Amino acid sequence: MTEKYVDDSLALHTDLYQINMAESYWADGIHNRKAVFELYFRKLPFGNGYAVFAGLERMLEYLKNFKLSETDIAYLRDELHYEADFIEYLKTVRFTGSMYSMVEGELVFANEPIVRIEAPLVEAQLIETALLNIVNYQTLIATKASRIKQVVQDEVAMEFGTRRAQEMDAAIWGARASIIGGFESTSNVRAGKLFNIPVAGTHAHALVQAYKNDYDAFHSYAKRHKDCVFLVDTYNTLKSGVPTAIKVAKELGDKINFIGIRLDSGDIAFLSKEARRMLDEAGFPNAKVVVSNDLDEYTILNLKSQGARVDSWGIGTKLITAYDQPALGAVYKMVSIENENGEMEDTIKISANAEKVTTPGLKKVFRIINKKNGKSEGDYITMADENPQAENRIKMFHPVHTFVSKFVTNFEAKEMHQLVIDQGEVVYENPALMDIRQYVKDNLKLLWDEYKRSLNPEEYPVDLSQKCWDNKMRNIKEARDMVTELEQN
Amino acid sequence: MTEKYVDDSLALHTDLYQINMAESYWADGIHNRKAVFELYFRKLPFGNGYAVFAGLERMLEYLKNFKLSETDIAYLRDELHYEADFIEYLKTVRFTGSMYSMVEGELVFANEPIVRIEAPLVEAQLIETALLNIVNYQTLIATKASRIKQVVQDEVAMEFGTRRAQEMDAAIWGARASIIGGFESTSNVRAGKLFNIPVAGTHAHALVQAYKNDYDAFHSYAKRHKDCVFLVDTYNTLKSGVPTAIKVAKELGDKINFIGIRLDSGDIAFLSKEARRMLDEAGFPNAKVVVSNDLDEYTILNLKSQGARVDSWGIGTKLITAYDQPALGAVYKMVSIENENGEMEDTIKISANAEKVTTPGLKKVFRIINKKNGKSEGDYITMADENPQAENRIKMFHPVHTFVSKFVTNFEAKEMHQLVIDQGEVVYENPALMDIRQYVKDNLKLLWDEYKRSLNPEEYPVDLSQKCWDNKMRNIKEARDMVTELEQN
Repeated sequence: MTEKYVDDSLALHTDLYQINMAESYWADGIHNRKAVFELYFRKLPFGNGYAVFAGLERMLEYLKNFKLSETDIAYLRDELHYEADFIEYLKTVRFTGSMYSMVEGELVFANEPIVRIEAPLVEAQLIETALLNIVNYQTLIATKASRIKQVVQDEVAMEFGTRRAQEMDAAIWGARASIIGGFESTSNVRAGKLFNIPVAGTHAHALVQAYKNDYDAFHSYAKRHKDCVFLVDTYNTLKSGVPTAIKVAKELGDKINFIGIRLDSGDIAFLSKEARRMLDEAGFPNAKVVVSNDLDEYTILNLKSQGARVDSWGIGTKLITAYDQPALGAVYKMVSIENENGEMEDTIKISANAEKVTTPGLKKVFRIINKKNGKSEGDYITMADENPQAENRIKMFHPVHTFVSKFVTNFEAKEMHQLVIDQGEVVYENPALMDIRQYVKDNLKLLWDEYKRSLNPEEYPVDLSQKCWDNKMRNIKEARDMVTELEQN
Repeated sequence: MTEKYVDDSLALHTDLYQINMAESYWADGIHNRKAVFELYFRKLPFGNGYAVFAGLERMLEYLKNFKLSETDIAYLRDELHYEADFIEYLKTVRFTGSMYSMVEGELVFANEPIVRIEAPLVEAQLIETALLNIVNYQTLIATKASRIKQVVQDEVAMEFGTRRAQEMDAAIWGARASIIGGFESTSNVRAGKLFNIPVAGTHAHALVQAYKNDYDAFHSYAKRHKDCVFLVDTYNTLKSGVPTAIKVAKELGDKINFIGIRLDSGDIAFLSKEARRMLDEAGFPNAKVVVSNDLDEYTILNLKSQGARVDSWGIGTKLITAYDQPALGAVYKMVSIENENGEMEDTIKISANAEKVTTPGLKKVFRIINKKNGKSEGDYITMADENPQAENRIKMFHPVHTFVSKFVTNFEAKEMHQLVIDQGEVVYENPALMDIRQYVKDNLKLLWDEYKRSLNPEEYPVDLSQKCWDNKMRNIKEARDMVTELEQN
């Protein structure tokens, strides 16, 4: 039971093997060798043309507070039986490394490092699981929210998913990610408080049940709440709910601000048009129609194509769980490590699955913006010592189908990573959430429409520089040679 | 940022409309009327024939500690602008009601109340969102784990999903739910600590990368860890990983406990058979083959049918997110409320979607066990004043297709709900997690195999008593009459 531990820390929120590896590194005295890890995903979720990065705020908080608590230590010692010398060492571990990261709200793509950790090997290892846990979920939901908002367009999008979220953290961090992705509000009051997000909601069927009929329930609600959205489908939407909402609104006149009605079941296309007609005829042309009921970007697009008359969309389950693809597969891979002479050496992971082969070495990511039209030409990954900002012309080529290439001139190369933790010290201040949301909106203008289509978008180029590609090929060859040598022995 | 609030409480972990309704109830003085709510889902997840209930422990903890914190109050007052009198009242709200619940590990089915809350209306309302958030996720994962374990059978099933979980709570409560569903261990150390669950894991590719080759990495690992499972796919599984694991195991002999190898990529069916053969030929017939790589019940079934030789299955993404159906749609509906004369009255919610019509009244659930064969005949929902335990023969009939019916005699009627909170006081002690897991195993023996098939199982009967059915029909008619009357006025 969680309440047994008043000092529950997140430092143990990791896979057991990280601690086992930490022990090996420490026992061999290589734990403080400098290592470079990159965090990235291999495939965009939902078949979308871009993802929206979220999770930095939570990662910074986690890394800043990284420290095993007393009961953590006791657990490792008494239950998992790690040896005393290693336990003594673990007590001293903090995150003293550096973190380079894209900022929240950045549009990100497959196979480009979103986050780079440069830290003592043991620290970089212990934090892997939690960083992935955070980024995988928050980026997934910010991306899903952005997809939905692209369809909702200028109407209002509200996050309503708490009850179907995958436990409590998902509800609140998902609410926050939804705002980043472009949503206007959440129903979760705690998320509203923690992140300073607008909260929205009026009443549920239970209110109508408690008063036994729509009329008494709406009147009762209006007594204490000036802004009124009446839920009209408890008994019968068109025969009871909507007419009663209109009746109450007329009776109360200026005493309330009759914002509108909410539909939560039945055929939204038909009911919203009928409700709209009834509200208009009753003299409430400004009253809004709010809908909720298992919505996502596909149903919304469909409802709109059938002429649904909706002003506000409440979106729950399908958003908060990213229903059609509930996991982003971000990984965290070592690309470089200090050797016994203090020099950094590339590392690689070969795989039978070609897309799982890592790209070695300390690298940078640039977004190449065409100065003529202000649109992005693609992202360009270079080795750390390259500087495309100083070049007049760069060759961008597909990292798999290398013959697909183009030369780009008259560009601006925007470096995508910021130093956010400098040797253990957080040097980045999180912007206000509404500013992050605005940043996403501005970023989306950099993308051609073909990358923003919700179905079958074009593939945005994420290319390696020639030097980076050559380096990868050299590393693959060396690893293969090592295996061949093993075979021959 | 969450760390701004040292007193972050879960009392605000609710939808805004709950607080709005609470205000209306309070302003009208009906907030303390006794209300009865039921928590249930309408459809089994994954097309499974049963679900495994989990979430009670967390609900009890939440209800016991339900109290708005100082910053919660400040937020409601200063940011959401609730009025002072209502705020003063809210400060005093605790959960003083009673909760009847099935126990964790109970097999549950669609349309039967898992939890019943009998509480002052305002309290029952405020807690809805959090209860659903908890039950929906934990029950979903316990059920998914049970499905997977049915396929894994006597081999070992390990939960490896933290990095892909939907944020941190999902990782730890999902690990716990996996154990309930039949898993042997989790990789999440914090979950191990919080819930006293076995934790498992050895090393990742990073270890091999840090040492640049399999040989040095395995030796280094073995220096500090007597129990060794070597990950063999960093460079080349069959040419480097497996032979090197065998070589190291031979060199170290009795100094280590060579448990086996882990495969994390490539074709598991082929590689596991080859690895098995190599291990056997090298004189390690007891060495285990551990696999992980996007597994679920479907891939495991497939791999087994191709003769894969696997001893332990590490299951991550597909389990921890319930990938193929990431939300359970449990709802929480009012079925009865006290009227102005202090009598309890039924409530109903009508819907254009027939399956969303609620079943009114205070009810009980019985599991009807055939005494002859010890198997369950189905579940039987009665009004609170019925007692099938005193009857010799009951008629069970399908609640939709009412002509599908059977008479049952020689049965035991097991009442499914226990009083777990008695007027605000928790009177239930949570069993040890391993006992809950055993309870699931025992429960599964009550079910005929046709309900346990992972594809297209038979539908387990959840029937209403005649009295309960008649009462529902009467309530539907009354609600319809009310709408008709409205139309005619």
